[in-house]
Amino acid sequence: MATIKRMFNYIPTLKYSTDSLLKSGDRLKQTRIFSSQDLVEFSKLSFDANPLHLDPEFARNAGFKDIVVPGMLVASLFPRIIASHFPGAVYASQTLHFRMPVYVEEEIIGEVEATSIRESKKKYIAKFTTRCFNNTGVVVLDGEAMAVLPTLCPTQP
Amino acid sequence: MATIKRMFNYIPTLKYSTDSLLKSGDRLKQTRIFSSQDLVEFSKLSFDANPLHLDPEFARNAGFKDIVVPGMLVASLFPRIIASHFPGAVYASQTLHFRMPVYVEEEIIGEVEATSIRESKKKYIAKFTTRCFNNTGVVVLDGEAMAVLPTLCPTQP
Repeated sequence: MATIKRMFNYIPTLKYSTDSLLKSGDRLKQTRIFSSQDLVEFSKLSFDANPLHLDPEFARNAGFKDIVVPGMLVASLFPRIIASHFPGAVYASQTLHFRMPVYVEEEIIGEVEATSIRESKKKYIAKFTTRCFNNTGVVVLDGEAMAVLPTLCPTQP
Repeated sequence: MATIKRMFNYIPTLKYSTDSLLKSGDRLKQTRIFSSQDLVEFSKLSFDANPLHLDPEFARNAGFKDIVVPGMLVASLFPRIIASHFPGAVYASQTLHFRMPVYVEEEIIGEVEATSIRESKKKYIAKFTTRCFNNTGVVVLDGEAMAVLPTLCPTQP
């Protein structure tokens, strides 16, 4: 089951009807399990060598259970969820409150909920509340995003 | 020179004195040039396959000059700058306003400026304004960050 989840890495049962356009109140969800290798790769890519993300002993001495997944890597779940349903979506803003540490091998559920949508120049400016939960249902990251969508008709990821 | 910048990928002349503690008004800067390969790697890592970041023709048809660097990858400059001076820094919050597209092979200067610092439980809660400029001096991304620092004594990255 874990393997299957990793392969697909999203919850296929999205909370909207695919034959309808995105509207306020619609929620889109995808899950992710970060591996320690993901953290090494992200460190190489971001040039961020914070030992909190790479060195278990350092992280434990700092009061954490284990190495912590970098906030921006967790937050990348939100544009991924939006763009996988609306390819070509352009991110305009995002606020991020890192409430709890996210650990490797923990299942994280990302959720975006449309809160307002308005048309502008044949595109759609959509606001979302954005949340990540761990598998005990605790919010680990939340905030709000705004994105410009080329369409309100979602693509099945 | 471009090669040297890529190798080191930061501006070594930081706007603070290393023999003093971080204080309000201090600015830390680092530069980054993203490559198209970075975008491929980030897509693999984030599972975000938005064609805006990967397909030049799609990006041009959407009104951009070329493929656009993902916002969260650009934003990762901020925790990198903070953590490279304060290893073990824990990110608490970040706001992000994506003002202008960031393109590959463009030199981006990330800057964080401490705006307030307070001690709490033998750690330091620091607020920063965070900005990225392109090489024409235009702000492409800005916002604010809050991080918990284990010390106010910066490490030379």
